Amino acid sequence: MEHSYIEEISAHEGHEVIIKGWIFNRRSSGKIHFLMIRDGTGIIQGVVSATDISQELFDTVSTIGRESSVIVQGVIKADKRAPGGYELLIKDISIINSSQPYPITKKEHGIDFLMERRHLWLRSSKQHANLRIRRSVINAAHDLFNKRGFTLFNAPILMPTACEGTTNLFETDYFEKNKAYLSQSGQLYAEAGAMAFGKVYTLGPTFRAEKSKTRRHLTEFWMLEPEVAYADLDNIICLAEDMIKAIITTVLLDRQTELKTLERDTEKLKAANSQFARISYKDAVKIVQETNSSFIYGEDFGALDETVLSNRFSTPLVIHRYPKKIKPFYMKTDPEDNELVLCVDILAPDGYGEIIGGSQREDDYNILTDNIKQHNLDQASLEWYIDLRRYGSVPHSGFGLGIERLVAWICGVKHVRETIPFPRLLERLWP
Amino acid sequence: MEHSYIEEISAHEGHEVIIKGWIFNRRSSGKIHFLMIRDGTGIIQGVVSATDISQELFDTVSTIGRESSVIVQGVIKADKRAPGGYELLIKDISIINSSQPYPITKKEHGIDFLMERRHLWLRSSKQHANLRIRRSVINAAHDLFNKRGFTLFNAPILMPTACEGTTNLFETDYFEKNKAYLSQSGQLYAEAGAMAFGKVYTLGPTFRAEKSKTRRHLTEFWMLEPEVAYADLDNIICLAEDMIKAIITTVLLDRQTELKTLERDTEKLKAANSQFARISYKDAVKIVQETNSSFIYGEDFGALDETVLSNRFSTPLVIHRYPKKIKPFYMKTDPEDNELVLCVDILAPDGYGEIIGGSQREDDYNILTDNIKQHNLDQASLEWYIDLRRYGSVPHSGFGLGIERLVAWICGVKHVRETIPFPRLLERLWP
Repeated sequence: MEHSYIEEISAHEGHEVIIKGWIFNRRSSGKIHFLMIRDGTGIIQGVVSATDISQELFDTVSTIGRESSVIVQGVIKADKRAPGGYELLIKDISIINSSQPYPITKKEHGIDFLMERRHLWLRSSKQHANLRIRRSVINAAHDLFNKRGFTLFNAPILMPTACEGTTNLFETDYFEKNKAYLSQSGQLYAEAGAMAFGKVYTLGPTFRAEKSKTRRHLTEFWMLEPEVAYADLDNIICLAEDMIKAIITTVLLDRQTELKTLERDTEKLKAANSQFARISYKDAVKIVQETNSSFIYGEDFGALDETVLSNRFSTPLVIHRYPKKIKPFYMKTDPEDNELVLCVDILAPDGYGEIIGGSQREDDYNILTDNIKQHNLDQASLEWYIDLRRYGSVPHSGFGLGIERLVAWICGVKHVRETIPFPRLLERLWP
Repeated sequence: MEHSYIEEISAHEGHEVIIKGWIFNRRSSGKIHFLMIRDGTGIIQGVVSATDISQELFDTVSTIGRESSVIVQGVIKADKRAPGGYELLIKDISIINSSQPYPITKKEHGIDFLMERRHLWLRSSKQHANLRIRRSVINAAHDLFNKRGFTLFNAPILMPTACEGTTNLFETDYFEKNKAYLSQSGQLYAEAGAMAFGKVYTLGPTFRAEKSKTRRHLTEFWMLEPEVAYADLDNIICLAEDMIKAIITTVLLDRQTELKTLERDTEKLKAANSQFARISYKDAVKIVQETNSSFIYGEDFGALDETVLSNRFSTPLVIHRYPKKIKPFYMKTDPEDNELVLCVDILAPDGYGEIIGGSQREDDYNILTDNIKQHNLDQASLEWYIDLRRYGSVPHSGFGLGIERLVAWICGVKHVRETIPFPRLLERLWP
């Protein structure tokens, strides 16, 4: 008899099954033990009656500790009162490993205590829910890009040069002769990919050795970066909007249980899932200046400014066309105002900050090489990238999505550290 | 009028379309130009007749160079003689960017010349085919694991300790106080994931600072690592076999054009797609010793030995139960022979070498901590991992698949450097 997973238990109503899992919780009431059993795909209430098993086994179960591993056999019964709607009437139970007293209990633990035990904390309901939602977010993105004919294009992590300087870069020796730097973005490589495959996306870890200690920063985080040949700024904004909506729709469809566990207000997610608000940088400045009189046109928005902006709208907020001088060298100059670039930031609602940054790329050889000079970058280390403008340059655009920030907003968790299995932070590299 | 992609061109037979792409090739015959146009999703032959466009435009087209970017408009016509079965009767053509003389021509180029121009080489038919097959390989694996309820679990890249020593590890400063090491495998973290989610898989880059200069080695390569709670060695061998077969089936179905471009003998792939050959290490030694008399029982197989072994079979070859002393500390001791471990290697056919390494993991606290001592590893840096045996330990198993080696075998390319967009090798970190 093969074992079953709790996720699919409704298919077995009235039948006998074997479940292999762990004790999530136990309470006893006279001649009955109620065992909450988790197997990684779900949780089910198992009922052990003294009349159904030997006295010896019944007594053993009465001392079984949390997270002990067990294999149970029994019959699945629909029961509206049971969490999840089904109950397991246990006929036999084998204890595989009796857990040592489990350190994470129902009482409030400090964040350091939990982060130190991240390998165990992952088993808790909320962490479990965060990462199952993360899974759905990534899957929904993969599905959308596949459906639209994008080629997954794995950009390299080890970079030969630090063309924008070594600040914020992790550096390693590359054998005797060279240094290598950990990638902050796969974009430049994705551009080469777009010229070869038309439509590509990267999905992988990226690194910032930034001394930021905020709830939005990780030193190692995952980025999704589509890049599309012959796409302009407007095309890429539409793609970003379609993608976020596809992700929200998937999560609302597949992760109701997890959203409930997280006590997420799903009405807010539904409200976000309509036509995104779009404003120019110029108009965004006006809104910011209403509450922050010291903000000067031409600056980039700070975290507080972003919160003010995003609180005005129930959808993610698209802000386009920022001043050229605060943006990177590869963004295309706006033909209608050469002080601006054709770029876009998308802010999540509720003060979760920037989740997407993108732009049309400068496809003109002369303007690009001029930008490189203006930014005092090392042109030699960018020659391969400049080649993309020598050999059949085309208009093209792309963006980067920070996976953890998007997941944090969808889950409604305050800190991105809970949205990745093993977060890396300024002061945390363990476990 | 929206533009169309060549991949879907059959849907537009008899209709007018716009295609945005690049000139892959051009030949002229009196009053007709034949343009091979690529758009990243496919290649189509465009026909430009002097009678259909202005003389000026016709003359311009006659000088248009390879990889110049063009937007063409015309009618799709079925034509059995045309490569791909369709032809585009061009009515209008705009040259977006006239390419500089393209460095990669039809003549034979040296590998250094091509690797130095990897960002352009990606546009060539064979490289294009390799990476489209790579895309299908990864998608097929994602699909299988999703269908089977696995949770995608991104293991960290930055590791706090080098528990097996720093040889072959890339090292970086982690802010002022610490060192970090780039991950060689996500397995230990995936084990924590399996205890939380039952079934997980990681997919991400891994790193080996190995001074190997062979056709099978990259310093940065992608690994897929499933890990399953309550699975034994046999379960995980079946999973690996199912996965490879699902991948071969997908590639044979979706990538006929690419396999043809690569001149891959698909009969060999079909032959590989049946019940995998399975032998024990002991039996494998006997085969190796037939041709390599100096091979001693207890050693690991070298590349030549692997070729001898894989050439005996038309399917991938499963070799199980190696001597404990040549395998890592985390592998479970075989209860039937404590000199062996419950592990598995899978070799690709045709001498492509090991593509999968896996094992049942040691789930016994005492044996595991004893192994750690025997291997002279730093137990303190593994305490979190040992915790998985303190709190509800269960039998569990997993494996790692090297994406590039599998793609190399499926594509029939000799060197793994052609199976990843921007390969990193002992002597190559550029572009």
